[in-house]
Amino acid sequence: MPQNRQWVLAARPVGRVTEECFAWRESAPPVPAAGEALVRTLYLSLDPAMRGWLEDRPSYLPPVQIGEVMRGGAVAQVVESHAPELAPGDLVRGTFGWQDYAIARPGRSLGLQKLPTGVDPELALGVLGLTGLSGYFGMLDIGRPQPGETVVVSGAAGATGSIAAQIARIQGAHVIGIAGGTEKCDWLVHHARLDAAIDYKRGPVDAALRELCPRGIDVYFDNVGGPILEAVLGQLAERARIVLCGGISSYNATEPPPGPRNLMNLVLKRARMEGFLVMDHAARFAEATAQISAWLDAGELAHEVDIQEGLENAPKALLRLFEGRNTGKQLLRVARVQTSV
Amino acid sequence: MPQNRQWVLAARPVGRVTEECFAWRESAPPVPAAGEALVRTLYLSLDPAMRGWLEDRPSYLPPVQIGEVMRGGAVAQVVESHAPELAPGDLVRGTFGWQDYAIARPGRSLGLQKLPTGVDPELALGVLGLTGLSGYFGMLDIGRPQPGETVVVSGAAGATGSIAAQIARIQGAHVIGIAGGTEKCDWLVHHARLDAAIDYKRGPVDAALRELCPRGIDVYFDNVGGPILEAVLGQLAERARIVLCGGISSYNATEPPPGPRNLMNLVLKRARMEGFLVMDHAARFAEATAQISAWLDAGELAHEVDIQEGLENAPKALLRLFEGRNTGKQLLRVARVQTSV
Repeated sequence: MPQNRQWVLAARPVGRVTEECFAWRESAPPVPAAGEALVRTLYLSLDPAMRGWLEDRPSYLPPVQIGEVMRGGAVAQVVESHAPELAPGDLVRGTFGWQDYAIARPGRSLGLQKLPTGVDPELALGVLGLTGLSGYFGMLDIGRPQPGETVVVSGAAGATGSIAAQIARIQGAHVIGIAGGTEKCDWLVHHARLDAAIDYKRGPVDAALRELCPRGIDVYFDNVGGPILEAVLGQLAERARIVLCGGISSYNATEPPPGPRNLMNLVLKRARMEGFLVMDHAARFAEATAQISAWLDAGELAHEVDIQEGLENAPKALLRLFEGRNTGKQLLRVARVQTSV
Repeated sequence: MPQNRQWVLAARPVGRVTEECFAWRESAPPVPAAGEALVRTLYLSLDPAMRGWLEDRPSYLPPVQIGEVMRGGAVAQVVESHAPELAPGDLVRGTFGWQDYAIARPGRSLGLQKLPTGVDPELALGVLGLTGLSGYFGMLDIGRPQPGETVVVSGAAGATGSIAAQIARIQGAHVIGIAGGTEKCDWLVHHARLDAAIDYKRGPVDAALRELCPRGIDVYFDNVGGPILEAVLGQLAERARIVLCGGISSYNATEPPPGPRNLMNLVLKRARMEGFLVMDHAARFAEATAQISAWLDAGELAHEVDIQEGLENAPKALLRLFEGRNTGKQLLRVARVQTSV
């Protein structure tokens, strides 16, 4: 068996995350004990939230430690199993990290799940994975768009934002997506079939929102924070709901930037701002995945997968998110599915 | 009949509101038409929200115009009536403004309500008025404190904060009040019977919160915004609720100051921040007033009334709020109740 290639955290980022934060290491693959399986990574999921795991402060997950394999969601294939739940060749989803081989412990590994037969592993980390589910629960449970309401989504061409925005469209809302660049905005209008898109690199977002949302914004699904959040807060409709999903605009800041100056508009508009974490909704993942699959089958959900190649490019693939270079879900292919193991 | 003494808005404040923003005027009292009554102001209510009415921008109420009598809640007594609903001598609550005499139009005047017999007019504008009701609906409907939860209230010695904090205590929560000065903090612990009080003028609020809220903050009732909001956001418990009632710390700012740097903690803690306006709950005022009265009768709600004297001191009385000089409800006595009109 070949060496286990790994990326470990070498240094915590100060401000912008760089390739130098990670170090390459090769070691012998782990050996599964009773009740465990050895899995081989096929795809890594790259997500903005990973930036937060690099900070040395308490959060919803413990920080990745220096010298530890970089944490990351993945789809992997079972190579060898001493667990009755898993057989060689099975595809599994889990937090296997930036490495070729990992140990899967049914019932104990974070987020471990066997993929149902026939599920495309590329979808399993995107539209049918945590990013798609984040769009689903954030929009439906917290945003709760009603037919005819005005919904704005930032990071709208991203893995979560694109699903959130289209689910609002399916609910009958008037949906405006915010993204950076003409290509992403064209995709939002022509493929995701949103009512309009705003290119934040092109001009002031608040002027565009004023034009496109004459009756105010009922639901805002926020992936970016920063000045765009402030612009939206200035144009809320009464009883507006702001879904806080993330704030990529400041993830790489050395000092967190100041927040919006106009939070008190939440009072004047009797509005609500609420954060959520998708893992809290795990009990309803099956229901949500079934619904998303049905929408996919019906051609209602456009989605993009941006696949980079090779474990050696994992840090580069992560950086693409903060450079806004990805459209849709950012994945890294580490190995191909083996049809006979 | 004497002249009608009035304060009109002379100039919009730039930053801090000053006495010079208002001008004194005397004119003939208005003459009630059919369906109207002439009322004489007894007490004026002074409230932080009045600062917002002076700004020339759309809000939940139209701005007070230059030259217009300053808007303000009041208790008044009917002098002359051509309305079947009102008789001379009746006490009424309404938005009569900073003047001796006003016209009450049953069914049309903003917030007009005849006071039930026996209601103390000083309470009618405070604990049984809009400020008390704000504490009631904000805490119970939005904060929803559960027994044993940790609740923090800022502006806790104020008219709204003091009621909100005590209602949380009645619900069985562990309640910490934040106020400025030893006297207010003593009142919070010994009269309002909160578990602890933090004097924000004395030292860093975040250190005090860390000590007093070891399991994090479940509910925060915010009357001030600014750095205290940021300190609370840094110490939220999971599923925390932040009730946005007001933000007096920045009402007098020329430029609104930046918001909290740590809004993304709402995501990590799956927390909610929500604004409200008490008038939206008008349909349930009778129910709420009955409950507050019952708590008052049972000795469960301490409350303070700070009464200044004389219509000529109305601007000074308003300024007291922004100087933090009031403990409890700030009122201005304009005239005494006439027992035989």
